[in-house]
Amino acid sequence: MTPINDPALVDELTTLYFKYEKALCENDIGVLDDLFWDSPHILRFGATENLYGDEIRTFCQNRPTQDLAREISNLKVVTFGVDTASITLEFCRTINGIFRSGRQSQMWQKLPEGWRIVSAHVSLLPESGKPHR
Amino acid sequence: MTPINDPALVDELTTLYFKYEKALCENDIGVLDDLFWDSPHILRFGATENLYGDEIRTFCQNRPTQDLAREISNLKVVTFGVDTASITLEFCRTINGIFRSGRQSQMWQKLPEGWRIVSAHVSLLPESGKPHR
Repeated sequence: MTPINDPALVDELTTLYFKYEKALCENDIGVLDDLFWDSPHILRFGATENLYGDEIRTFCQNRPTQDLAREISNLKVVTFGVDTASITLEFCRTINGIFRSGRQSQMWQKLPEGWRIVSAHVSLLPESGKPHR
Repeated sequence: MTPINDPALVDELTTLYFKYEKALCENDIGVLDDLFWDSPHILRFGATENLYGDEIRTFCQNRPTQDLAREISNLKVVTFGVDTASITLEFCRTINGIFRSGRQSQMWQKLPEGWRIVSAHVSLLPESGKPHR
């Protein structure tokens, strides 16, 4: 049976996730680039764009660096076995002066080169919508 | 090393995915319920709502059944080892008479009870936005 949520692994991934969150909010392109899987199979669905493979790196290098701060909630780290994790959260941030609620999900995989994000999806709820919780 | 994209496994998951897609478009609640992990750790970020655990089942049982048809593109099935898969796609559908583009990502895990969706995220691109590709 697949061991789910081994406590030590959940701690490890939680720490790793906060490394990502810090890099995201500080626009630390080097760390972000390290944490995304270097593969044509990676993809990142962003709030307004669908990025595949190398397009993620180009996007990170060129994204606006203002208003990156965000408040996160409902962070969930779920691990499967020793090499797979789901990391999800909800967030709020101000975009162009408007308060928006969003969601982020990432699939992490332990590869020979270390833990990497192999798939990511970020989206905003409709402006008039409220998060379910 | 984690074997990535074993062809037989990719075929298996692709077939399984189309079972999900058919159930989604036909609102086959029994199949959908079977394919989602029965666990408090599951979550589904939908186009307008964030659902955790049993909330997914309740949502599926009560969702509107009109205009469920959609056209999918860029289906990507990526497998890791023998028990993990990422399945992602882009879609177009008409919602309240308006043509919308969206994205869906799912993380699948082979559990003792079989392959299950353990995390899902569906979102629409902004109405004025165009998909990147």
